[in-house]
Amino acid sequence: MRELKSKVVEEVNKRRDELIEEVRKLLKMPSISGSGEGIKETASYLKEWISERIGAKTTLLTYGGHPIVYGRLDVGAEKTVILYNMYDVQPVEPLELWEAPPFEARIVGDKIIARGAYNTKGALMSSLLGVEILSRIDRIPVNLVFVLEGEEELGSPSMPKFVEDKFDELKKADLVYFAFPSERVRGKPTIVLGNKGIVFIELRTRVSKYDVHSSFSRGLYNPAAVLAKIASHLIDPLEGPRIPWLEEKAVGPTEEDLKYLKDIEEASPAEELLSLYGVFKPRLSGRDWYIAVYFKPTVNIDGFSSGYTGPGTKTITPAEAVMRLDFRLVPNIEPEDVIKGLQDLVKRLGLSDLVEIDVKDS
Amino acid sequence: MRELKSKVVEEVNKRRDELIEEVRKLLKMPSISGSGEGIKETASYLKEWISERIGAKTTLLTYGGHPIVYGRLDVGAEKTVILYNMYDVQPVEPLELWEAPPFEARIVGDKIIARGAYNTKGALMSSLLGVEILSRIDRIPVNLVFVLEGEEELGSPSMPKFVEDKFDELKKADLVYFAFPSERVRGKPTIVLGNKGIVFIELRTRVSKYDVHSSFSRGLYNPAAVLAKIASHLIDPLEGPRIPWLEEKAVGPTEEDLKYLKDIEEASPAEELLSLYGVFKPRLSGRDWYIAVYFKPTVNIDGFSSGYTGPGTKTITPAEAVMRLDFRLVPNIEPEDVIKGLQDLVKRLGLSDLVEIDVKDS
Repeated sequence: MRELKSKVVEEVNKRRDELIEEVRKLLKMPSISGSGEGIKETASYLKEWISERIGAKTTLLTYGGHPIVYGRLDVGAEKTVILYNMYDVQPVEPLELWEAPPFEARIVGDKIIARGAYNTKGALMSSLLGVEILSRIDRIPVNLVFVLEGEEELGSPSMPKFVEDKFDELKKADLVYFAFPSERVRGKPTIVLGNKGIVFIELRTRVSKYDVHSSFSRGLYNPAAVLAKIASHLIDPLEGPRIPWLEEKAVGPTEEDLKYLKDIEEASPAEELLSLYGVFKPRLSGRDWYIAVYFKPTVNIDGFSSGYTGPGTKTITPAEAVMRLDFRLVPNIEPEDVIKGLQDLVKRLGLSDLVEIDVKDS
Repeated sequence: MRELKSKVVEEVNKRRDELIEEVRKLLKMPSISGSGEGIKETASYLKEWISERIGAKTTLLTYGGHPIVYGRLDVGAEKTVILYNMYDVQPVEPLELWEAPPFEARIVGDKIIARGAYNTKGALMSSLLGVEILSRIDRIPVNLVFVLEGEEELGSPSMPKFVEDKFDELKKADLVYFAFPSERVRGKPTIVLGNKGIVFIELRTRVSKYDVHSSFSRGLYNPAAVLAKIASHLIDPLEGPRIPWLEEKAVGPTEEDLKYLKDIEEASPAEELLSLYGVFKPRLSGRDWYIAVYFKPTVNIDGFSSGYTGPGTKTITPAEAVMRLDFRLVPNIEPEDVIKGLQDLVKRLGLSDLVEIDVKDS
């Protein structure tokens, strides 16, 4: 095994420049699931790549949305591993904050700057190259199933249908591996043993066809005020989430979970993360941070938009307001719990008539 | 007087097409004070127009911002009238909602569609043409002072300096007239006997340099939640403004004010206004509407923006949030009351460290 590892390292070092260019080639392809830009091209490219370079039988499956690259490589081994990954990325706006264009894949120092370089097209192509190298210098010791979806950033709407469709083949696998390489501290790779679920919800209030001159505001409903009220009942700005209907049901952290806390603290130091994002002051720190972030359900405002906040002033009562929320789930919480709890809250506040709740993903 | 009126009407009818084109000419000039677009050109155009067509001595005055068109016409009369107006307009966004380009001044039916057609470049040029016609067919019976500012939509920051500068000349006037013609019910012109003051404030919360992946949200301050909390303490979505520190100080409506209520109801029917803006359901109606809208202090959310609400989903804890408020004042309330009350509220909520308060106009 040690011998194999050094052979792999040797091969990687030998082909270093070429491997980096392979990764950059994928990063240069836009694949924004929100707008659909470049999705088809990227899916086809990956299908061909896996087929030609690894020899797997590949196909594109669609279930009403963007294609899933599906591939199988049967080497007659006892064990089977599913390599799950995603080839889509988030929107690139605001563009002016980019140090380099998001699909140039510019090399700056020892990093590649690109939308998806980290999450997760960089990891995806690196792991595919890893499989190819292994197959060349030795052999792949397990049967492989490739599942690369293009809708992860939309909440994976096609995945349940895919799993149902291919359940008989998928259930034979012994392990599902999602290559999302992270080495926040050199030499301490992050291995995530599970993931939180997510429910993404849009709330919308529309009170008029056009914006109204603000001199009439006192006789009108203000749509931003309607959603702000709901927001203030979901999140206390200082105390954090106010989601008793989820907190009560939530299980964990368990004794076993807590045993891993020290590992998490060492492999994913909060300080490093906060400095990466330029957080001025976190709401929590120390052990509180780790327990809250890794083991508790959450509610977050992802976006809030109403009226005008551009140059100059515009004195209006806006026609509408939009708020986007994501809830992240922990064991024992189902998407329905989130939705029901939110509907109940809006009703309790007397705002059901004014607010439209649209569950975008769960 | 009756004879003069019919002469004026006759002249207006004779020159109808030409007069409409004069109004359209001004409407076609962009003059957006927020961005500064077209401001200089419009000010110069008006200065020349008033000088050539009415014979007034005109000049452009600047006090650090956009110019004020200032003019004097002394006809040796006993009384002097100040004609105040504004030549600037609000921003034109969102462009996709315009039936015709905002500076085309397209005629549709019996209306001209343009940014500022109603508020108030249409009224401005119409009243200047009225003065010109009067001077041609008879004589102007009062001395005139023209004060046309280009910063009304920004809250008139130069006006206090202008009034101080020209106070000796201005104080001789017997009346200030602001032509903002409105005939909501045919034959019932609106005459406004006073105007509310305004304070325009921007609140900003910035918690990080970049947006943070929302899986970490529970350990962070959410900037939209910070401002939403403040909003929910300023406006109850159903009950309206929560500004006890202003309500207590506010004077009015007085007995005299209430005597005009019937006139207001007849000249400015709320139903007509609400249908104009396409309001689905107002918060108040009947007498409550009129008293609240015309005689009470207000707080309004003009804009709220945080994170991303565009196509697709983006799961982030936004780096910052912005909220814009306007407060409208009634007798006995000073801008300082508004600002102090808001600062106190933010402090009482424990959010002073997280929120920056910027008084943009007052």
